[in-house]
Amino acid sequence: MEITSVQNKLIKETTKLHQKKYRDQFGHFLVEGYHLYEEARTVGNVVQVFTTDHAIVGEDVIYVNEAVLQKLSDAKNPQGVVTVCQKVDAQEPSDQILLLDHIQDPGNLGTLLRSALAFGFTTIVLDNTVDVYNDKVLRSTQGAIFKLNFIHSSILEFMEKYNWILYYGTAMTGVPIQAFSTMPPFGIILGNEGAGVNEHILRKTTKNITIPMIQTESLNVGVAGSIIMYELQKKLS
Amino acid sequence: MEITSVQNKLIKETTKLHQKKYRDQFGHFLVEGYHLYEEARTVGNVVQVFTTDHAIVGEDVIYVNEAVLQKLSDAKNPQGVVTVCQKVDAQEPSDQILLLDHIQDPGNLGTLLRSALAFGFTTIVLDNTVDVYNDKVLRSTQGAIFKLNFIHSSILEFMEKYNWILYYGTAMTGVPIQAFSTMPPFGIILGNEGAGVNEHILRKTTKNITIPMIQTESLNVGVAGSIIMYELQKKLS
Repeated sequence: MEITSVQNKLIKETTKLHQKKYRDQFGHFLVEGYHLYEEARTVGNVVQVFTTDHAIVGEDVIYVNEAVLQKLSDAKNPQGVVTVCQKVDAQEPSDQILLLDHIQDPGNLGTLLRSALAFGFTTIVLDNTVDVYNDKVLRSTQGAIFKLNFIHSSILEFMEKYNWILYYGTAMTGVPIQAFSTMPPFGIILGNEGAGVNEHILRKTTKNITIPMIQTESLNVGVAGSIIMYELQKKLS
Repeated sequence: MEITSVQNKLIKETTKLHQKKYRDQFGHFLVEGYHLYEEARTVGNVVQVFTTDHAIVGEDVIYVNEAVLQKLSDAKNPQGVVTVCQKVDAQEPSDQILLLDHIQDPGNLGTLLRSALAFGFTTIVLDNTVDVYNDKVLRSTQGAIFKLNFIHSSILEFMEKYNWILYYGTAMTGVPIQAFSTMPPFGIILGNEGAGVNEHILRKTTKNITIPMIQTESLNVGVAGSIIMYELQKKLS
C-alpha cells in the first residue's frame, strides 16, 4: 500500500495529531525520524508507521511519497519516517519523582525530561505544563519520552494522595543543595520560568532547596532542575 | 528628536545589526527590552537608544513610534526599547574558563553563558560557535553577555598560547566528575551538540571528564556544561 495524495483521509486525520486537542481525543501522538521510530518499536507502542523508506517493514507500515511525508511532518526536512504512537497510562510513582509546576517552554520541558531519565527520576508529575507530546518537546527529549512514567495531576493533590513521600520545593531562599541529603521516596518540585514554584506548594513541602551561585543571576529552569537531580542522584549512589 | 518613518536612514542602518556581517563590520550589536537596556547602561557600553518611552532620557536617546520600534526589533512584541551596544574587546583570561568548540544552537550557547556567569567562569573562548550577539542567544543569556570576557580563538591555539592553564575536555569515556578535583587556572572544553569535542583537542588536554548517568542517554550540552561548572565551582568554595 502506498499513499501518494496529501488529500488522503487517513493522512488528513493523522496530521491532526500535531494539535493537542486531537492527541487528547485519540490518545495518540506523532514522533519523527528513525531514532524515535526505533525507540517506539522497542517499547511496543507503535500504532502506525508512515515512511518513504521501503527498508522499514511491518504490518503497521504504510508507504508514502515525499509530499505526503512532508504533510505529516512538523519538520522542515522530514527524516524519512513519521510514527503514530499510543500514549501509555500512568503507573504508580517510582521512588524519585520530578514534579513540574507550570513549565511553559517546550525546550525547557524537553531538557528536564532528558535529564530526569539520565539521573533516575522516572516519574514525572505534570501540573499545567506545556504538553509532553508537543512536537518541540519531543524533539528535545531524544527518546526519553518512551521511558518515563507521566502523571497528570495537581501537585497539591498528588502530595495529599502520596503523603509518605518527601517533597522538596526549589526557591531562591532554600537550603543550599550541597548541605542537604535525603532518602527515597522523594520528589523535587520545579516551578514556572518566571514565577517559580507556587507559594501554596512551597508552604507544604518537607523542605525547600536552592543552588548557590557566584553571581545572583537565576539559572535556566532546565539547568537548575538538572543540577538538583544530578546532585541528589550522586548522593544516593 | 522623534523618528516616525521606517524609511529613515539611521533606522535602516541600525536594523542591519540583526545580521552578523554588519555586527562584525561596525562592532555594534542590538539588545531588546528594559532589562538589557539597564544592564548596558550599568556597564557603560550604550551607543544609541531607540525607545517609545519618554521616561527614558539621555543624550543618546532617540524617540521613535511603534512602527519604527517594530522595524528595529527582532521580537514579535517589542518591549519599548532597543539599545545599540558596543562590543567590548577581549581581556586576558580569568582563572576559570569555558572553551566552546562548534556549539551551534543559540539556546544552548545562551544557557551556557548564563550558567558560566552563575558559577564564576567569566572568560569564554569561542571556536566556531554561533555568534554571541545573535538575537536568540541574547534572549536566553539574560544579561550575562555584559559581564563575561569573550575571546574568539581556535581552542588549540589558545591552549598553546596559555600553556600553564589546565585544560579538561568532556567525553563519554572520561573520568567521572565526582572523582575529580583541580585548582585554577583551568578551562573546561565543551563540544558540538552532535559530534562532541574534536579528537585533536581531546588528545591535548590535561584530562578528560564525564558525568555519570543512570541511563546511557546523552545530556543536552547546555545541561552537561552547567553541571560540570557547578561541580567544579562547588569543589573550590
